[in-house]
Amino acid sequence: MTKHSLPADIERTSMEIIARELTQRGIELEPCNAAVIRRVIHTTADFDYAEKLRFTPDAVERGAAALGRGAHIVTDTNMAKAGISRLSLERLGGEVHCFMAEPLIAEKAKKGGTTRAVAAMEYAAEHYPRAVLASGNAPTALLKIADLIESGLRPSLVVGVPVGFVNVIESKERLFSVCSRYDVPAIVAMGRKGGSTVAAAVCNALLYTASDMLDPAERGWH
Amino acid sequence: MTKHSLPADIERTSMEIIARELTQRGIELEPCNAAVIRRVIHTTADFDYAEKLRFTPDAVERGAAALGRGAHIVTDTNMAKAGISRLSLERLGGEVHCFMAEPLIAEKAKKGGTTRAVAAMEYAAEHYPRAVLASGNAPTALLKIADLIESGLRPSLVVGVPVGFVNVIESKERLFSVCSRYDVPAIVAMGRKGGSTVAAAVCNALLYTASDMLDPAERGWH
Repeated sequence: MTKHSLPADIERTSMEIIARELTQRGIELEPCNAAVIRRVIHTTADFDYAEKLRFTPDAVERGAAALGRGAHIVTDTNMAKAGISRLSLERLGGEVHCFMAEPLIAEKAKKGGTTRAVAAMEYAAEHYPRAVLASGNAPTALLKIADLIESGLRPSLVVGVPVGFVNVIESKERLFSVCSRYDVPAIVAMGRKGGSTVAAAVCNALLYTASDMLDPAERGWH
Repeated sequence: MTKHSLPADIERTSMEIIARELTQRGIELEPCNAAVIRRVIHTTADFDYAEKLRFTPDAVERGAAALGRGAHIVTDTNMAKAGISRLSLERLGGEVHCFMAEPLIAEKAKKGGTTRAVAAMEYAAEHYPRAVLASGNAPTALLKIADLIESGLRPSLVVGVPVGFVNVIESKERLFSVCSRYDVPAIVAMGRKGGSTVAAAVCNALLYTASDMLDPAERGWH
C-alpha cells in the first residue's frame, strides 16, 4: 500500500478483506444479497450488517431492475442524496430527490401537525409513486411508508435503514412486515443501526448491479 | 412514544438512553469529551465509539472556540458537508466547504499524479489554513494533512474519522501522533470505523458547544 494507490485498487483490496473476514466469521451470504451486504460493510467497517440486513424475496433483483428502467430515488436526508452515485443513476435514466429542506414540506408538516419526514414521504408518494424510497434517518418516514403501502402505494423498493434509539426498531419491524404482506421489495437493517451512509450504500450497490446487467463492458470501478 | 413526538423530545430521550447504557457498560466519559462522544453514538447507534474516539488535550475546547470565532470547516466528502448544521455554522460566522467535486481539483490531482482527496486538502491548506479539517472518507487526505502539519500548517482542529480496510488505521495513527507532537487539536476515531456521518456528528457537537458558549439562551434543540 502506498499513498499513490488508485481508488479502484483500494476498493478491490477492501472487498477481498471483507470476503475473507466474513469466511473467518463463518458467515456465508446469500449470493443474491452479497453485493449489497458487502458494500454496506465496506461503507461502515461494521460486520454486524451481515446479520442485520434483511431482504424480502428478490428485493435486490427487483430493485436493480427498477433502477435499470430509470426509477427515481427519494431519500429522507440530503446526506443520503449526496452519497448516491449520480453518474450511475443518470446513466440509467433516474434522478435522486430529497424533499426534506423544501419550504413547501415544512409548511405541509406544520399544517398537518406532523414531521417534515412524514410530509416529505407523502409528497414523494404523490409525485413519484414508483420510486425507490430510501430512509436512513426518520422512523416516522418508515411508518408513513408502511401506512401508504397499506393504502395501495407500490414503490419499486423500500430501503429502510434509519438509525437511532427511539421507535427505530419498531418502525423497521412494521415496515418489513407490511412490505412482506403486500409483496413490496424491501431491504431493512434490523435493530438500531443504519444511517444516511448505509442508505446510500444500499442504493449504490443496486445501481452498480443494474449497470452491470445493462452493459457489463462499461462497468467502471465501484 | 407516538408518531407525533417532536424531534426535540426524541433527541432528549435518545441521549438519556445513551447515558444510561454507557453507565450499564461501566464506561465513564471524560466530561470535556462527553458531548462529542454521545453525539457520535447518537448518529451511529454504535457504542464502540466510546472507546475508539481519541482526543488530544483540550481538542474539544479549542475546536469549539475556533468555531465560535467563525472558523470555516473543510470536509473531504459532500455527504459530510451536507450533514453539518449550516444554520449553527452561519450564526457563528463560518462556512463549510468541500472541494472534492471541483473540476480544478480533478485537474490538480491528475497533474500531480495523486488522489483528488490529496489535491483538495492541499487546496484547503492554501486557502483556509486555519480551518477545521474534517475527513470521514480518505486516508490519503489524513496522510496529506499530517505532512502539511510537519511542514508548518496549523489548522484549528483536525477531525480524522475515515472508514475502511486499507491504510485507514495507519493513517489515523500517524495523524494523531503528528497532531500530538505539534500541538494541533485532533479528534480521531481509532480503528477501521468512521465515515461522513461521524465527521458531521463531531463537527455538529462542537458547533452546538460553541453556540452554547456564546449564547446559552438561544440554544435550540440539537
